[in-house]
Amino acid sequence: MPANFHPVILAGGRGTRFWPLSRKKRAKQLLALDGKETMIQQTVARLMPLAKAKQFWIITNGDLRPEIARQLKRLKPEHIIAEPVGRSTAPAIGLAAFILRRENPDAVIGLFPSDHVVTNEVRFGEILGEGIEIAAAGENIVVLGIEPSRPETGYGYIEVGSLASGNARHVLRFTEKPNADRAAEFVRSGNFYWNSGMFLWSAKTLTNALTEHLPKTAGLLEKIAAEYGTRKFAATFKRLYPRCEDISVDYAVLEPRSAKGEQESRIFCLRADFGWNDLGSWTALHEHHVGKSTPADGNLVSSKGIFTLNASGNYVHSPEKFVAVVGVNDVVVVDTEDALLITTRANSQDVGKVVKFLDKKKLKKLV
Amino acid sequence: MPANFHPVILAGGRGTRFWPLSRKKRAKQLLALDGKETMIQQTVARLMPLAKAKQFWIITNGDLRPEIARQLKRLKPEHIIAEPVGRSTAPAIGLAAFILRRENPDAVIGLFPSDHVVTNEVRFGEILGEGIEIAAAGENIVVLGIEPSRPETGYGYIEVGSLASGNARHVLRFTEKPNADRAAEFVRSGNFYWNSGMFLWSAKTLTNALTEHLPKTAGLLEKIAAEYGTRKFAATFKRLYPRCEDISVDYAVLEPRSAKGEQESRIFCLRADFGWNDLGSWTALHEHHVGKSTPADGNLVSSKGIFTLNASGNYVHSPEKFVAVVGVNDVVVVDTEDALLITTRANSQDVGKVVKFLDKKKLKKLV
Repeated sequence: MPANFHPVILAGGRGTRFWPLSRKKRAKQLLALDGKETMIQQTVARLMPLAKAKQFWIITNGDLRPEIARQLKRLKPEHIIAEPVGRSTAPAIGLAAFILRRENPDAVIGLFPSDHVVTNEVRFGEILGEGIEIAAAGENIVVLGIEPSRPETGYGYIEVGSLASGNARHVLRFTEKPNADRAAEFVRSGNFYWNSGMFLWSAKTLTNALTEHLPKTAGLLEKIAAEYGTRKFAATFKRLYPRCEDISVDYAVLEPRSAKGEQESRIFCLRADFGWNDLGSWTALHEHHVGKSTPADGNLVSSKGIFTLNASGNYVHSPEKFVAVVGVNDVVVVDTEDALLITTRANSQDVGKVVKFLDKKKLKKLV
Repeated sequence: MPANFHPVILAGGRGTRFWPLSRKKRAKQLLALDGKETMIQQTVARLMPLAKAKQFWIITNGDLRPEIARQLKRLKPEHIIAEPVGRSTAPAIGLAAFILRRENPDAVIGLFPSDHVVTNEVRFGEILGEGIEIAAAGENIVVLGIEPSRPETGYGYIEVGSLASGNARHVLRFTEKPNADRAAEFVRSGNFYWNSGMFLWSAKTLTNALTEHLPKTAGLLEKIAAEYGTRKFAATFKRLYPRCEDISVDYAVLEPRSAKGEQESRIFCLRADFGWNDLGSWTALHEHHVGKSTPADGNLVSSKGIFTLNASGNYVHSPEKFVAVVGVNDVVVVDTEDALLITTRANSQDVGKVVKFLDKKKLKKLV
C-alpha cells in the first residue's frame, strides 16, 4: 500500500438519468445498480487496497451526506464533507487539497467519481500504483484515460503525445464534448482517450496550480482549510465556499496548464484499461449487465417472476412484481413505489429531462 | 317498457386479455374500464329502461358471484346464478329459458354479454324494442349484427338475405372466425355482419329449439329448472349441470336452424348501429378511449401526474403513480400492485398467454 495516498471521492451529483430510482436524497452513487454494494461502496472498496480508511475523503452535499455516512461506516465522519452549496470539481477537490497540504504537502491526492464501474480491480490497482508514483515525483499531474470504444459526444477527450515512461504519455490537449465528426476523427486517430475524471497529484502540486490559475478561489479555500478541525470551520465554510468559482478542475487547471506544451505542463495520461464504465444511463447499465451475463434474448428483468414472449433487448426494473413482457423490444421500464418510467434504450439519456420537469413543477416528493 | 322482457347476462368469462387488471375473482366485466361504472353495471344500466330489475338474470361462476352481487344490489340475488362448472352459452341461457318458461312461455329472453361497450344507448333501446317485438311474435329468433368496420378474423359473421321487416333481414348462415381472405371478402360483400352475441327469443322458442337440437342437455336443464326455488335446487344443479354439453348456442341452435333456409329458420338479423365495441384487448380499449377524447398525441395515461416527451400512441395504466413516457411509441403498460405488463398495441391480444402461463405454473395469486 503506497503511503500518503489520499482518495478524494466526489459524491455530490444527482445522477438524474437514473430517475425514478435515483432521487435527491438517494442519488445514483447510493444505489446498488451493479451488484449488492452501492456505487460509492464499490468505489471505496476498490481503493481500499491502496489507502487506509482514515485517508479517504468524500465531498458531497447535505441531502446525501447522512446516507453516505451510513453506507461508509469505516470512513472518518469528519472526512465526509457536505458542501454548503453545490460547486464544480475545482473548489471541491481544492478544499481537500488545501486541508491535506497543511498535514503533508507531499500527500498524493486521487480524485475519483463515486458512481462509475470498474470490472478489473487488479488492473485498477496496478495502474493506480503507477500513477501514484508519477504524481509523488515532483510537480506532475496524472490523468487516467480510457481507450474510446465509440465516437461518444458526451465525454471529454484527452489528446496524448510522446511516451513519457511506462504506460504514461504526455498530454497535449483536453477537448470537451466534441461534435460527432470530430469524435469519430478522435477515435480513428488513436491518440485520444476519454477523460475518466480520475486524476492524481500531490497536495502541493494541486494547491500551487489552483493558486496560479484560480487565485481568488484558491485564497478562499486556503482560509476555509485553515479552520478545518476547529469550531469555526462550519461557519467559515458556509460563508466563504459560496464565493468560490463554480468551475471544473479540467477547465480551471488542466486546460490552461496543458497549453504550456507537452513537456512543460507535466500532465501525464495513463491508459486505464481496467474495464471502466460510467453507467451514464439506464441503457448503459443494461449493456453493462448484458455484457456480464449475456442472456440469449438480451432481456434484463429484475422482478419477482417473469414471462416473456417475442421480447428482446428490454430492461425492466420492478423488483417486487411479476413482470410480463409481450411482443416488445428495446424498451426500458423502471417501476418504483411512486413513479413509473417508460422509455427506450435509444432514448434513456433524456430521462434527466423528467427530473428537470419535476424540479420546475416543484414536485419535490418525486425528485 | 315492454312487458315480459327478461335480460339474461352472461358473466362467467375471465377476460384474460385484460390481465393484470383482470383476475379470476375480478374478471373484465367487473372492471371499470370505461368510465366510473364497471362493464357489467353499464350492461345492466343500459337495459334498465327495457326491463324491471327483478326481471334480470345473471349467469356467472362461484369466483365472480360475490362481487357481481355486490356491484348489482338492485337485482334479485336469486337471479344471480353461479354455474357449478363452466359451460358455454347453450346450457347457460337454456337454464334461464327453462326456468322462465315455467312462469311464462311468452317471456322474451335477451341474451347479453356482460363486458361490451355501447356508445349510443338511445339507439340501443330502439333496436332492442324492435327486436323484442319480433321475438314476441311467434317462433322467431333475433340476432343483433354489427356492421363490420375491418376484416376481423376473431369474430363470428352472420350472412343476411332478403329484408324481412323494418331493419330486420333474414339470416342465411353463421360463419365462425373466417381466415383473413374470407373476412375481407365478407366485409366487401356488404351482406355480412359481426355476431354481437346478443340474441332475442321467447322462452318457448328457445326451449323448443334446445329440445330439438340438443335434446339430452335440454332434458337435464328442464329437470334443474323444475327444482328452481326449492331447497333441492343447489344439489340438483350441482349434480346435473356438469352433464350438460359444453356448446355455444350458436353451434347448438343457430347454425343447424339456419340450415333450414332463409324463410323456414325464422332467424332475423337486426343491424345494430349503436356504437358497439367488445373491448377485446388493451389496444381495443385504448382505441375506444382515443375515439372519445382524441388526445393530440394519442397517449392515454391514467396516473397521478404525467410527463411525456417524444411519445405517442401509448396506453399506460398506473393510477397511483407519476408516469413519465420518454421517446417511446405505441406501447401498452399496465401496472398493478403485484404485476406489471409491458406490451405493444400490435401485440396486446397475446396477453391471454401470460394467464395461460400463470395457470400452468399454478401462480394462483397472480391469476
